[in-house]
Amino acid sequence: MLKDRPFTFINSAMSADGKISTKKRKQVKISGKTDFDRVDGLRAGSDAVMVGIGTVLADDPSLTVKSEERRRKRVESGLDENPVRIVVDSQARTPLDADIFKKGTGKRIIVVSRSAPADRVEALSKKAEILVAGECQVDLVEMAHGLKNREINRLMVEGGATLNWGMVRSGLVDEISVFVGNLIIGGKDAPTFMDGEGILEREEAIGLELKKFEPMDEGIVLTWRVK
Amino acid sequence: MLKDRPFTFINSAMSADGKISTKKRKQVKISGKTDFDRVDGLRAGSDAVMVGIGTVLADDPSLTVKSEERRRKRVESGLDENPVRIVVDSQARTPLDADIFKKGTGKRIIVVSRSAPADRVEALSKKAEILVAGECQVDLVEMAHGLKNREINRLMVEGGATLNWGMVRSGLVDEISVFVGNLIIGGKDAPTFMDGEGILEREEAIGLELKKFEPMDEGIVLTWRVK
Ligand SMILES: NC(=O)c1ccc[n+]([C@@H]2O[C@H](COP(=O)([O-])OP(=O)(O)OC[C@H]3O[C@@H](n4cnc5c(N)ncnc54)[C@H](OP(=O)(O)O)[C@@H]3O)[C@@H](O)[C@H]2O)c1
Ligand SMILES: NC(=O)c1ccc[n+]([C@@H]2O[C@H](COP(=O)([O-])OP(=O)(O)OC[C@H]3O[C@@H](n4cnc5c(N)ncnc54)[C@H](OP(=O)(O)O)[C@@H]3O)[C@@H](O)[C@H]2O)c1
Repeated sequence: MLKDRPFTFINSAMSADGKISTKKRKQVKISGKTDFDRVDGLRAGSDAVMVGIGTVLADDPSLTVKSEERRRKRVESGLDENPVRIVVDSQARTPLDADIFKKGTGKRIIVVSRSAPADRVEALSKKAEILVAGECQVDLVEMAHGLKNREINRLMVEGGATLNWGMVRSGLVDEISVFVGNLIIGGKDAPTFMDGEGILEREEAIGLELKKFEPMDEGIVLTWRVK
Repeated sequence: MLKDRPFTFINSAMSADGKISTKKRKQVKISGKTDFDRVDGLRAGSDAVMVGIGTVLADDPSLTVKSEERRRKRVESGLDENPVRIVVDSQARTPLDADIFKKGTGKRIIVVSRSAPADRVEALSKKAEILVAGECQVDLVEMAHGLKNREINRLMVEGGATLNWGMVRSGLVDEISVFVGNLIIGGKDAPTFMDGEGILEREEAIGLELKKFEPMDEGIVLTWRVK
């Protein structure tokens, strides 16, 4: 399988009750400095970092490598300063003035479906490479093959709730690391680490293996291998 | 504060993505034998164990101490075999044939609001002590005082999602322990460790302190002190 797709890991920060934001769905500080630096290292070590369009619209993240030294090292190894930044965006809704375009150098890929409005796709194609996969929604398996063909061998997924679930459910994820923070957010409508449809029966659950646990800042980082 | 209410802790089992069941809201096996035994020990060491009516209707738990030895030790110390079993149930919906009535010996308390239908309250009063707190919904603070007056000094809360949130939000919880299991459940509609209303802004978050982390079965138990 790994021949056809990148090695893929999800990294996220959640509250002790599994939330990645409040029900207002705006970015919330969950981790601390040490974890920020850990995440920056993971980014710098990846060929690409990916988010869903929900996260772009909610948080407008730049997804750049923050450490100057890490950027320098990447350039010294013949890489771009930043890994390829990817948005999964069926209808090509990524704003043309999004921070992933405005901040930092390096390649961007917007993954759209075949039903994305042509004018929006054309506008985005001036800012990013367009990868088309799926009819009405992005087909994540087809996308993963397309990314592998573009020499993306190590892919970091940074949320949000819906994309995380989609990637795991499609069998495209090898590893999961999650910072569990020292706070309770609560709320039946707050986004959790994995939303989407979810399973109905226990047998459908995605099995994990605990690889590592590491207290950090005021929380703990859990690293799971997907079975 | 502890003068007016029991020392209270929540114990739960959640998936790696913060779910305590699937969206079908039926009981799901998340932990293993070692954790079951740990939970049994916590029950045996408590004056009372409490759940919300949602959990009674979904899972019909008996909430008894499973280990014969632990029950024997309780009796030897002059206690009932099982801790007091409590249901938070504003409208007195607890079924008369619920397993908390049918299984095991010891006291039961049904906490109802003043708007609970009198006939249902009367029927339940033959099976359990009735504690009245709050007008339309159980007032958890008033309830906690009532429990303390009944010499419940150590209270274990075993869910579900809505009651956990209510207890934490009302400032009634001292400690939280959660088994994080090696599976992903997913689903925006699946119950999480803490549902209810949730916070809107980061500043409203309930702060925790990580006291302990202990790998167990195929997962890890995190113990937090509520700040
Ligand atoms: N704490 C953290 O670590 C962290 C990290 C990131 C985000 N967040 C939070 O997460 C929230 C956003 O999460 P979200 O769930 O709303 O959005 P999301 O997961 O970022 O994006 C989901 C969107 O991706 C698109 N998509 C296209 N194809 C898909 C497929 N096959 N499977 C799944 N998604 C597909 C869908 O929109 P289209 O159909 O229109 O394409 C879908 O609505 C925000 O509150 C943000 O703050 C937190
Ligand atoms: N994995 C685990 O460790 C675990 C443990 C327990 C349960 N569960 C799961 O949790 C789910 C049930 O959770 P749930 O959220 O539906 O039900 P719940 O938390 O057990 O019960 C909630 C109900 O309690 C009553 N209540 C009365 N006063 C309240 C107050 N002040 N604050 C909060 N609640 C109050 C409300 O009903 P009224 O207004 O009618 O009184 C409310 O709907 C099930 O899927 C079950 O399997 C999992």
